[in-house]
Amino acid sequence: MALRDQEDVIREGSFVLLYLDGRRKYLTRAEKGRALHTHKGFLSLDSMIGLKYGSKVKSNIGAEFVALQPTPWDFVLKIARKTQVIYPKDMALMIFKLGLRPGMRVVEAGTGSGALTCALAFFVRPGVVYSYDVNPSFQEVARKNLERAGLLDYVVLKVKDVTQGIDEEDVDAVVLDMATPWLVVPHAWRALKGGGHFASFSPTINQVEKTAVELRKQGFVDIKVYELFLREIKVEEGAVRPETLMIGHTGYMTFARKAL
Amino acid sequence: MALRDQEDVIREGSFVLLYLDGRRKYLTRAEKGRALHTHKGFLSLDSMIGLKYGSKVKSNIGAEFVALQPTPWDFVLKIARKTQVIYPKDMALMIFKLGLRPGMRVVEAGTGSGALTCALAFFVRPGVVYSYDVNPSFQEVARKNLERAGLLDYVVLKVKDVTQGIDEEDVDAVVLDMATPWLVVPHAWRALKGGGHFASFSPTINQVEKTAVELRKQGFVDIKVYELFLREIKVEEGAVRPETLMIGHTGYMTFARKAL
Amino acid sequence: MALRDQEDVIREGSFVLLYLDGRRKYLTRAEKGRALHTHKGFLSLDSMIGLKYGSKVKSNIGAEFVALQPTPWDFVLKIARKTQVIYPKDMALMIFKLGLRPGMRVVEAGTGSGALTCALAFFVRPGVVYSYDVNPSFQEVARKNLERAGLLDYVVLKVKDVTQGIDEEDVDAVVLDMATPWLVVPHAWRALKGGGHFASFSPTINQVEKTAVELRKQGFVDIKVYELFLREIKVEEGAVRPETLMIGHTGYMTFARKAL
Amino acid sequence: MALRDQEDVIREGSFVLLYLDGRRKYLTRAEKGRALHTHKGFLSLDSMIGLKYGSKVKSNIGAEFVALQPTPWDFVLKIARKTQVIYPKDMALMIFKLGLRPGMRVVEAGTGSGALTCALAFFVRPGVVYSYDVNPSFQEVARKNLERAGLLDYVVLKVKDVTQGIDEEDVDAVVLDMATPWLVVPHAWRALKGGGHFASFSPTINQVEKTAVELRKQGFVDIKVYELFLREIKVEEGAVRPETLMIGHTGYMTFARKAL
Repeated sequence: MALRDQEDVIREGSFVLLYLDGRRKYLTRAEKGRALHTHKGFLSLDSMIGLKYGSKVKSNIGAEFVALQPTPWDFVLKIARKTQVIYPKDMALMIFKLGLRPGMRVVEAGTGSGALTCALAFFVRPGVVYSYDVNPSFQEVARKNLERAGLLDYVVLKVKDVTQGIDEEDVDAVVLDMATPWLVVPHAWRALKGGGHFASFSPTINQVEKTAVELRKQGFVDIKVYELFLREIKVEEGAVRPETLMIGHTGYMTFARKAL
Repeated sequence: MALRDQEDVIREGSFVLLYLDGRRKYLTRAEKGRALHTHKGFLSLDSMIGLKYGSKVKSNIGAEFVALQPTPWDFVLKIARKTQVIYPKDMALMIFKLGLRPGMRVVEAGTGSGALTCALAFFVRPGVVYSYDVNPSFQEVARKNLERAGLLDYVVLKVKDVTQGIDEEDVDAVVLDMATPWLVVPHAWRALKGGGHFASFSPTINQVEKTAVELRKQGFVDIKVYELFLREIKVEEGAVRPETLMIGHTGYMTFARKAL
Repeated sequence: MALRDQEDVIREGSFVLLYLDGRRKYLTRAEKGRALHTHKGFLSLDSMIGLKYGSKVKSNIGAEFVALQPTPWDFVLKIARKTQVIYPKDMALMIFKLGLRPGMRVVEAGTGSGALTCALAFFVRPGVVYSYDVNPSFQEVARKNLERAGLLDYVVLKVKDVTQGIDEEDVDAVVLDMATPWLVVPHAWRALKGGGHFASFSPTINQVEKTAVELRKQGFVDIKVYELFLREIKVEEGAVRPETLMIGHTGYMTFARKAL
Repeated sequence: MALRDQEDVIREGSFVLLYLDGRRKYLTRAEKGRALHTHKGFLSLDSMIGLKYGSKVKSNIGAEFVALQPTPWDFVLKIARKTQVIYPKDMALMIFKLGLRPGMRVVEAGTGSGALTCALAFFVRPGVVYSYDVNPSFQEVARKNLERAGLLDYVVLKVKDVTQGIDEEDVDAVVLDMATPWLVVPHAWRALKGGGHFASFSPTINQVEKTAVELRKQGFVDIKVYELFLREIKVEEGAVRPETLMIGHTGYMTFARKAL
């Protein structure tokens, strides 16, 4: 349950982020009788049990790895890479902009692979995330990811079309990462408490335009649209320079608040 | 105590973010017998007590404001504007990258006006932030800001030069926003637990270079340097475009983790 | 005629860019009996005649200026600041992307204050720029700017609505900086020679979308849309950092070529 | 000679840019008896002779290409891709910032593969570019590229170490794309005429810092350092969004002018 809880020692079943170098990290779990195969040899996932996080471990060919406790950032990055465009940088902005805190109740759609769901649950627990998705197979993937992260207790997975309505009331925030967020605006309005937060992530500017227009029509205030660029800097002594390649676009984030 | 706690109703002493339009928001508190003077007339801060957050209130000349509960984002933006260059977008990235969570123990330097201290305390409470600053007058400002935010219980303010050493041990993270972060690297190493996080915010690339070199020398791993651009998009129906002016630079963020 | 021609010596009527420091430059002309008033005293514009470009001149209170020959960059920046959003960085990209060269014939609309017209004429002379604008008063401003720049001989100013048609044929490029570029696409097609270049500058993404759709419908190929960020770096020894404020958006550039 | 001259008809030896779609373009030449092999079949390079630029040509399997005249942008992009980091966007800014015009005399170092040399020669011809490089084999590559572009007549290739001195005097500009530009600053000073332009392209911020410090020491004025981001926008009707991947860094450009 290494994602949910801060731990000092690697236990059986704990997540471990095996750091080799700036480009190669492996997210795995300490498990009896298992090994991880890498380009630099294989590592016993068994022998890590009982070590302190931060310890160095060696592969059978002598390559040195550091066994770190993964953060939600590391975790969602691994999940997100497979299926989504929302990146940790975007989640970070959302979490802080919405002021997520323990005890909040948040509606999310779509669930997708559960990367954003994990991030939301991590910050609102012991609150709850109601996560909608029409696709039951996506929700199965998400369930597994949430279970592994030790966060399933704080999530209600709902196989439902959120454009048809939201069941919950007086929620603190509605967070959308779906193709047609503008169709959810009236439902979000009804579900939110006074001053509650609306947030939507969209790759295209057309989605943003439709959503912002709908938000204004509905009476939302403080409508803000942002995009975020994350640029990595390569630091060699005497030769500092930004990385040549960067992610130039993930998506736009639209924020608004409900006025009574 | 409106920053710390999620509330539905405005009480005496609660923070209120009075939203007029996209460019004008006023951060104030509901207080008996007081009023807020704006370009659009004055508002009774008394009469808000008892209203639900999200309610509309009118100035004496009929201008309509929405009374929102401020988030940490709103709060630090107000504080940070006066004295610092670290922006909410940067704090958001740090919080998520470090995986801050309830119960963590974090060392911070320098305290400055307490904007970053507030953000850290918000996410680690009931954990604790040990905040170092050599300047006692800064710490007085920070104390007031933390008290207002209801977060002072989770912060230990220390009038001390962090380049001379860190008193704490086995902390989860060391977070620096100061002129000479590289001088703190060896102290951070001793203070951190295995796998613990180092984070530093610096406006110049020279500070980043010295710090990264020192981190490598000390044996830190997973050293990453980022900069973040936040761009606001103006959405009028049929006329969507990014804002003309943007903040082109706040600072670089350097992250690293302690390998045992 | 200092903009058009490369000169070594300041003559009567020559443009002079008086450089004081990184933030203060004055674009003026060497003229008998005139003076320039600045925050740092006044300078005789008369006494500069006969000096070499690059010479230092002093104001009556001893402030030192350098008398430089302005480039088209300096010139259009001064003009553009008053009325337009297209910046030198964007013009530069257009000029190189279109492969502008001496002898080309280019259609431009709208003329505006003539900033872009100057840049185009500078690179195609002894070719010609046909510049359309419905507003005769704009064209008067542009005429003066072109005359001052010594470039009026290479421009045909036309008080005409380019959305109604283009008179010229077999032109090398059509360059638009106007509100409704998509309405000009069919006319551009007829006016261009085989392989000829279409370029359009627009502040909103909606203009870009309409224009790109129209370009495809018309049979243009190699349609590319770009935006360009120019970031200034402040270099003090030991303290290098990007400028805090930057222009976050000027406009999008749409390029295409005519296939026969 | 299709790069140097604007032409309407493809002649033997002319450059042709064969456009297939937004991602696939082939830079080749019309030549008797030769063919181009692509993923979409092969095209006779012979049969293009005599066609108008802009014409459509078909491969043996029926794929349709448009035969465009390449611009310097297209040409340097092909050369630059193999060996350098300076991109057309950067060259464009340099050309316009320096106010390059027919007749200018420019010193350049290092020659490299001649991509920047081509761009400079294109804009100063019938002026001249003096291009220094210590490496004779680079200059051979450059010679071929310049010859193909029809620009060799305007370039003097010099196998010489520019850090040891510049032979020319009273030049309009010195343009550097080399590892140690700061070592050339004193030589550039001597070579430049009053008000003449210094420009340097460097991937690392350390090179920029050293160069700017040296420029100030030497008495250059109007020192400006820029970086440029080019972002491509993908326009599908109803789905407009920036490209996911972008080049996040090519290099910094340092500009300055000589004060007498």
